[in-house]
Amino acid sequence: MGEENLLPNKQIVLKNYLQGCPKETDFELRTTKVSTEIPHGSKGVLLKNLYLACDPYICHLMRPRGLSILSSHGFIVPGSVVRGYGVAKVIKSGYEELKEGEYVWGITSWEDFSWNFYPQQLLIKINITHDVPLSYYAGILGMSGLAAYVGWNEICCPKQGEIVYVSSGAGGVGHLVGQFAKMMGCYVVDLLKTELGFDDAFNYKQGDLRSKLNKYFPKGIDIYFDNVGGEMLDEVMLKMNINGRIAASGMISQYNLKEAQGIHNLFSLIEKRLSVRGFMVLDYKEKYPEYAEWAVKKLQEKKLVYVEDVITGLENVVSAFVGIYKGHNIGKRIVVVAEE
Amino acid sequence: MGEENLLPNKQIVLKNYLQGCPKETDFELRTTKVSTEIPHGSKGVLLKNLYLACDPYICHLMRPRGLSILSSHGFIVPGSVVRGYGVAKVIKSGYEELKEGEYVWGITSWEDFSWNFYPQQLLIKINITHDVPLSYYAGILGMSGLAAYVGWNEICCPKQGEIVYVSSGAGGVGHLVGQFAKMMGCYVVDLLKTELGFDDAFNYKQGDLRSKLNKYFPKGIDIYFDNVGGEMLDEVMLKMNINGRIAASGMISQYNLKEAQGIHNLFSLIEKRLSVRGFMVLDYKEKYPEYAEWAVKKLQEKKLVYVEDVITGLENVVSAFVGIYKGHNIGKRIVVVAEE
Repeated sequence: MGEENLLPNKQIVLKNYLQGCPKETDFELRTTKVSTEIPHGSKGVLLKNLYLACDPYICHLMRPRGLSILSSHGFIVPGSVVRGYGVAKVIKSGYEELKEGEYVWGITSWEDFSWNFYPQQLLIKINITHDVPLSYYAGILGMSGLAAYVGWNEICCPKQGEIVYVSSGAGGVGHLVGQFAKMMGCYVVDLLKTELGFDDAFNYKQGDLRSKLNKYFPKGIDIYFDNVGGEMLDEVMLKMNINGRIAASGMISQYNLKEAQGIHNLFSLIEKRLSVRGFMVLDYKEKYPEYAEWAVKKLQEKKLVYVEDVITGLENVVSAFVGIYKGHNIGKRIVVVAEE
Repeated sequence: MGEENLLPNKQIVLKNYLQGCPKETDFELRTTKVSTEIPHGSKGVLLKNLYLACDPYICHLMRPRGLSILSSHGFIVPGSVVRGYGVAKVIKSGYEELKEGEYVWGITSWEDFSWNFYPQQLLIKINITHDVPLSYYAGILGMSGLAAYVGWNEICCPKQGEIVYVSSGAGGVGHLVGQFAKMMGCYVVDLLKTELGFDDAFNYKQGDLRSKLNKYFPKGIDIYFDNVGGEMLDEVMLKMNINGRIAASGMISQYNLKEAQGIHNLFSLIEKRLSVRGFMVLDYKEKYPEYAEWAVKKLQEKKLVYVEDVITGLENVVSAFVGIYKGHNIGKRIVVVAEE
């Protein structure tokens, strides 16, 4: 194989299984080369990665005893490149449905160039007939957006005028759910009051949850969209109204603990006839076209605000990712690997 | 008021608010007299109590900081007579819908004779045209039966062939749910294998839950009907199958703790797309006639086995009640105050 068939490729490699919160030292930058030859007879697609999503669930894949059901794309073992959602350009294709020069979003790796040999499962072609930025497919027009959409519409069973609390409302999913709720005429409390028009705001990383919840929800909570879990979930249980619903979307406060915090107030489930439902966005893939059409329209009409927290450079993806567990992001954190 | 208008009345009185498990010393037997005169202009009904239900929820009503929403019939403060569900005979009535000599079930007190001034809210007339024992209205044909029925049919969303676990399956509600599940062609594990025909059995009060659950549920659990809460709920979370449902019916293991045990495995909610719903049987009162007709028919056809754990004598109601928190009952524990 001649030198002309290889491209230099920077990669983010997991060095050690995660213990507790991800740390920058758990990863290393490796420079290698990637072949541009399509393996004979394969349907492989070579991607140039453009945008990578810093998604909280990724840490699950990098632990020794992972959650096998969770992963749609396998675990990440030490020595291998980190995988996650992103937006890429097809630069070689052995798969007839995807042509060179087309754009896709889906599962890729944290590197400059990635081979994907299962494109029909994991990559979705991007329709670029509208003027929405490509990077949005790493967030609002990708998994985060769909998670917010199905979580809100399918899991929360919302009614106009209900009181909604979205924890981690500054996150990639949370800041969208809050807006969807507002569009429906619900009263929404969250962090991003000024930016997004939510009705009130507080930051869950500050202490004294109970008094804050009491202050912001004098009439209790009808719907809790939980991205946080742990102590927040426990306290919210006490504030839920009768027949309230809780969507268990994520538990970012718990992902990096050796043992999850204990939830003590589950008697509220009975006392208040609550319903708690967990969901995984990939179960609702068939909703994506409907969602994407709706979201693009809302974005174009400026009825939906999408907050991107943009970090530039593959070499910065690790610090960007580590930061989301510390709540450093406002909106969806993405990393620009290459512009086009 | 002459002596002829008074009846001697033994009463069970709460002495102190409960701390931890109810103890026999928290109660005392008081002998007093009750007037048989209907207060002028009232709709009061004088009941001769026949059967009292030992229902686990009663302990909630006897704590200083109670669960206000739970109680359909108010709290029980020190110095007052314990209240709960039972079966009684009307011996005086100022309420035209109920006549002397008729039988009722509903909220009464732990004493020989009770006045009820809200009969339309709290008492249901018993149709005695069939040959089911009257005592059944303190259990299978009362709140316990309805709780099992709506919990199973409305909350569990069962499908034929699913794997069902009923904790506290020996209890008044649990032993009925297990049978309802069997009738539907589900595979049911619980304590009362030999007596009730459940498919397997173990006793949750013995240790090492995880290995027992692994043994009895090699294919996981689709539906968990939880009467226990606490550690059991926590362990069951790990055994639930994808799209499983949990009905939160009761948490008898937690009622007597100062602080409920922490539940650590709630990430299973997301990972396995679980649904957990709490319910209160009184929200489903309108289902009672449908249920009672169905249950009487099933009892008469001997397709439903009802296990009564009968204790005789008002003076024994306290030890009978205290015993249910220790798991001493097999089936629904009731106390016979008077035979007719």
